[in-house]
Amino acid sequence: MVPARSSSHAFLRLQRGAPATLAAQLVEQLRRAVLDGVLQPDHLLPSSRELARELGVSRNTAVAAYEALAADGTIVVRPRRAPVVAHVPARAGWQGAARAQPAASAPRLSKSARRLAAVVPPDKLDALLEGRARSRPFGVGLPDLELLPWRILDRCLARRFRAMSAADALLDDPRGAPLLRRAVLHHVAVARGVRATVDQVFITEGSQAAIDLCCRALLDPGDAAWVEDPGPLALRAAVRMAGARPVPIPVDEDGLRVDVGAHRRRGAPRARVAFVSPAYAFPSGARLTLPRRIELLAWAGRAGAVVVEIDYEGELRFDGSPLPSLLGLDMEGVKDRVIHVGSFSRSLFPGLRLGFMIVPPALVRAVAAVRAASTRSPPYLLQAALADFIDEGHFARHLRKLKQATRRRRDLVLAELGRLLPGAVRARAPAGGSVLTLDLPADADDVAIVQALAARGVDALPLSRSTASRAGASRAPGLILGFGAHAEPALLEAARTLAAVVARATGAREQR
Amino acid sequence: MVPARSSSHAFLRLQRGAPATLAAQLVEQLRRAVLDGVLQPDHLLPSSRELARELGVSRNTAVAAYEALAADGTIVVRPRRAPVVAHVPARAGWQGAARAQPAASAPRLSKSARRLAAVVPPDKLDALLEGRARSRPFGVGLPDLELLPWRILDRCLARRFRAMSAADALLDDPRGAPLLRRAVLHHVAVARGVRATVDQVFITEGSQAAIDLCCRALLDPGDAAWVEDPGPLALRAAVRMAGARPVPIPVDEDGLRVDVGAHRRRGAPRARVAFVSPAYAFPSGARLTLPRRIELLAWAGRAGAVVVEIDYEGELRFDGSPLPSLLGLDMEGVKDRVIHVGSFSRSLFPGLRLGFMIVPPALVRAVAAVRAASTRSPPYLLQAALADFIDEGHFARHLRKLKQATRRRRDLVLAELGRLLPGAVRARAPAGGSVLTLDLPADADDVAIVQALAARGVDALPLSRSTASRAGASRAPGLILGFGAHAEPALLEAARTLAAVVARATGAREQR
Repeated sequence: MVPARSSSHAFLRLQRGAPATLAAQLVEQLRRAVLDGVLQPDHLLPSSRELARELGVSRNTAVAAYEALAADGTIVVRPRRAPVVAHVPARAGWQGAARAQPAASAPRLSKSARRLAAVVPPDKLDALLEGRARSRPFGVGLPDLELLPWRILDRCLARRFRAMSAADALLDDPRGAPLLRRAVLHHVAVARGVRATVDQVFITEGSQAAIDLCCRALLDPGDAAWVEDPGPLALRAAVRMAGARPVPIPVDEDGLRVDVGAHRRRGAPRARVAFVSPAYAFPSGARLTLPRRIELLAWAGRAGAVVVEIDYEGELRFDGSPLPSLLGLDMEGVKDRVIHVGSFSRSLFPGLRLGFMIVPPALVRAVAAVRAASTRSPPYLLQAALADFIDEGHFARHLRKLKQATRRRRDLVLAELGRLLPGAVRARAPAGGSVLTLDLPADADDVAIVQALAARGVDALPLSRSTASRAGASRAPGLILGFGAHAEPALLEAARTLAAVVARATGAREQR
Repeated sequence: MVPARSSSHAFLRLQRGAPATLAAQLVEQLRRAVLDGVLQPDHLLPSSRELARELGVSRNTAVAAYEALAADGTIVVRPRRAPVVAHVPARAGWQGAARAQPAASAPRLSKSARRLAAVVPPDKLDALLEGRARSRPFGVGLPDLELLPWRILDRCLARRFRAMSAADALLDDPRGAPLLRRAVLHHVAVARGVRATVDQVFITEGSQAAIDLCCRALLDPGDAAWVEDPGPLALRAAVRMAGARPVPIPVDEDGLRVDVGAHRRRGAPRARVAFVSPAYAFPSGARLTLPRRIELLAWAGRAGAVVVEIDYEGELRFDGSPLPSLLGLDMEGVKDRVIHVGSFSRSLFPGLRLGFMIVPPALVRAVAAVRAASTRSPPYLLQAALADFIDEGHFARHLRKLKQATRRRRDLVLAELGRLLPGAVRARAPAGGSVLTLDLPADADDVAIVQALAARGVDALPLSRSTASRAGASRAPGLILGFGAHAEPALLEAARTLAAVVARATGAREQR
C-alpha cells in the first residue's frame, strides 16, 4: 500500500527564535508524527524543495532535517525520488502489547540485589539518598579537616596535574599506579610491619571496595564467612551481596573468639573467609592477641580459608606503638592466607576514596581480572598526589599529629562522660582508633536514644544494630561514639547533651 | 609446669645505631623467640630492671618493650611479679598441621572469579599487569591529551580543592555529588535528548563500572543477556562475572538484529538484559535505526527485560547531529526499561575515571544499595571540578573541537588507507566515534597481523576476538583501528606501516 502524497503537513508548527533551530524542530515533529502513526510507513513525503516552500524555510533547513531523519532510519531518502516514511512500528500497537504483560511492571532485581535490600536498613539508605551527611560529634568515620595540611596536599595535586603524561592519563594497570603502590608498601612495611612485594599491592576506592573485591573473588552463594560480632554493618552487606552467609563470631577483650568460630555447632569451621580487625575490632576497640592470631591462622591453614585483615585504623594506635599486622607475623604458609586491607579515609578523608589491599601472590591475577571488568583503578591524579604526600614524609608527620589530637580527645570525652553519667553506663576506652562504646543498662532502647540525640544535634550509632541477634540472647544496648573529628569545645558540649539524654532515657540521675 | 627462670637470654642481639630503636629490636626478638618456641608458655622472664641490666640498656627501654609485648598478648605482665610468656601455640605444631592439609595450597577462588579467568585472554591480562599502556596509533580508547584545555581543568580543580567543606569531604550519597549529577543531566538533556530527573543519575568510575553495576543489580547466575556481536570483550567479562550468559546477537548496518535476539532458537527471547550501543556499535560504527529501536523496546516490554544503552561515544557524532538516545524517545512505559550509560573517558581522559548512569526510578534504591556496599561514589574533588567544567560551557566547547579534529583524522586515515591498500581490504567509515574497522580477506590471520604491527610500533585490535565463535561460521578477520588520539603526521606514518604489513601478510600487492 502506498498512501497518497499529502500536499500539506498541517501538524507542523515551526517557531522562529526558539532555542532549537528550525531544522531541529522539523526533525522532532516529523519523528513524533511517525511514532504516533500520523505518518504511516511508506507515506510519500514532499521533496526537500517542496517542504521548504510549504513551510517558508530555506532549502538547507529542509535538507538538514531529512538527512537527520534518514540517519536514524525514520525515513528513507532515495536519489531523484521523494523520500518515504520507513517501516517504523506504530506506537499504539507495541505499547498496548507491552502494557498487557504483567512483566511491564518494575524490572526484576537480581538475587544479590534482593538479598542486599533485606539487610540494609531502609532508614539508613534514606539518609544516604537524602544527602544528610554532616559532621557533628559523635559521628563515626569522620575526619577532622582542621588537622589536614591542605596547602601541602594542594601543592602535591597541582604539581602532579601539570606534569601528567599520556601514559599517566591512560593508566590501565588494574592494581593502580605503581608509584602509589610502592609508597603504600613502604609505609605499611614501616608502620605495620607488613612484608610483601609491590606486585601484591592493589589501590582501591577505599576499604569497603576492597572488602567487596574479596567477597567477589572468594565467596560463592551459600559459603560461610566469619564476621566480628559486634561489627560493621557494611561488611555484612558485602558478604550478603555475594550470596554468602555472614556468621557472627563474638569478640571479647582478647579479640575474635577463634574457638567459637572453629566450633562445629556454634561457629562455622568450614568458612571460606574470616573478616577480622586485629588492631581494633569495631566498635569495641579490642585487639587480637598474639595467641589468638596464631589460633586464627592455624585454623585458616587447616580449613583452606583466607583471613581478611581489615586494618581500617590500625596505624592510629595512640597508646604505645602500633601492633604488628597479621602480614607482619612472617610465618611460613601464613602469608598465602592473608589479605591486608587499609584505607586513607580515616587518616586523610573519606571523599578522597582511596584505600588499598595486599593480596597473596596466588590471588593477584584473579583480583586483577575482577578489577579490570569493574572499576579498574582509582583516578591517576589522586594516586600520584598521595604518593608524593607519603614519599615526602608529610603523611607520617600528619599521622603523628592526628594520634596526639585523637588521644587528647579520647581522654577528654572519657573524663567528661565518667563525671556526668551514672554508674550503670560504662564507657570503654580504646587504645587507638576513633570510636568508643558506651554500654547502657540492659533494658535501654539504644535506637530511640540515638534518635533523641540526633534531634538535639548529637550523632551516635546504636550498638544493638552492630550486634547479631542470637537465639536466646538479647542484643546488648549501647552507643557507638566517634571522638576523632571535632575540637575540644564541641566534644564537651556534645558530651553534656549526651549525658542529659541518656540519663533521662535510662531513668538514672545525671551527675552535675 | 613452670620452667626455671633463665638468668641470661643469649639469643638477644641488640644493635645500637640501627634504624629500629633498641626497644623495637627487643620486642621483635622476644616475640620471635616465643613464636619459635625458644621461650615456652609460662616461661618466667626477668623483671624489666634485671633485663635492662643484663642487656646494658636503659630501664625505660626494657619497660617499653614489655609493654608492647603485653599489649598484643605475647607476655603477661603482673603487678609486683616477674612477667611470664603467654600461652602462644608453638609454631612447629600448627605449621606442621597446616602443611599436612591439601587445603594449604592456593586459596580457592569463587565461581565468579573462575568464570572470569576463563574469558579474559591471559596475554591481555599480562599486558595490563606489565603496565604496557602506551599511546600509539591506532590504539583504541585513547584520548588526545593535546586537545584538552589543561589550564581550565587545572583552574576548576584548584578552586574546588580550596573551597572543599567538611560536608564535601564526607560525601556519602552513593549516587555521587548532586552538583555533578545536575550538570551531567543538563548536558545529556541537551546533547542526547535524555529526559530524566536528577534523582535517577548516578556518577560512576567510568562506563565499565556502570555496566558491572547493571550486571550485579539485574543478572542472576544462568540468566541470558544480549550482547552485540562483534562487541567489546570487557562487557562480556562483566556479564560472565555475574554468572550470566552473554548471548551474542549479530549487528548489521541498521544495528542490533533484534529479530535474531527475540528468535526462540537463534537468540534468547527471555533474556533479562540487552546491552546495546544505539549510537555506534563497537567496532562497526553501525547505529540502531528508529524501527529497530522500537522493535527492541517492544521486546523489552514483552519480556520484562531491561535495555542498557551504552552511549560510550554517543555525543561524538561528527557527521550530522547526534542521534537521540533511547531515553530521548520519551515513550510511555519505555523509560522504565532503559538504563543509560555514559563516560568521560573518551571525551576527556580515562585516568579521570568518571562516567555516569541514569536508571529508572524503580531501580534507584537497589543500585544505591549496591554502591553503598562497594565503591560508594567517586572522589568528591574530581566530581566538583568536572561539574564546574560542564556548567561553565568548557565541556561543550571542548566537544566541538574534539569532533572537528576527529572527523579530519577519520578522513585522512580513510583516504590514505584507500590509496595504499588493495581492493580485498575494505575500510568501513563511521559517522562518529573514534574507531574504524578494516575487513581482511577471509583467510587472513588478524591476530598475527596485530602482533606484526605491534613490533613495528603500530597498535590495533584483531576483529576476530571481538566476534563470538558460532557453530558452522568462521570469525571474519579484520582490524579495529582507533584514529582519534593522534595528530595527522603520526597517523599518516602509521597508515603506511599498516598498509605495508597488511599487504605482505595477505599476499596482496601494496599500492604506492
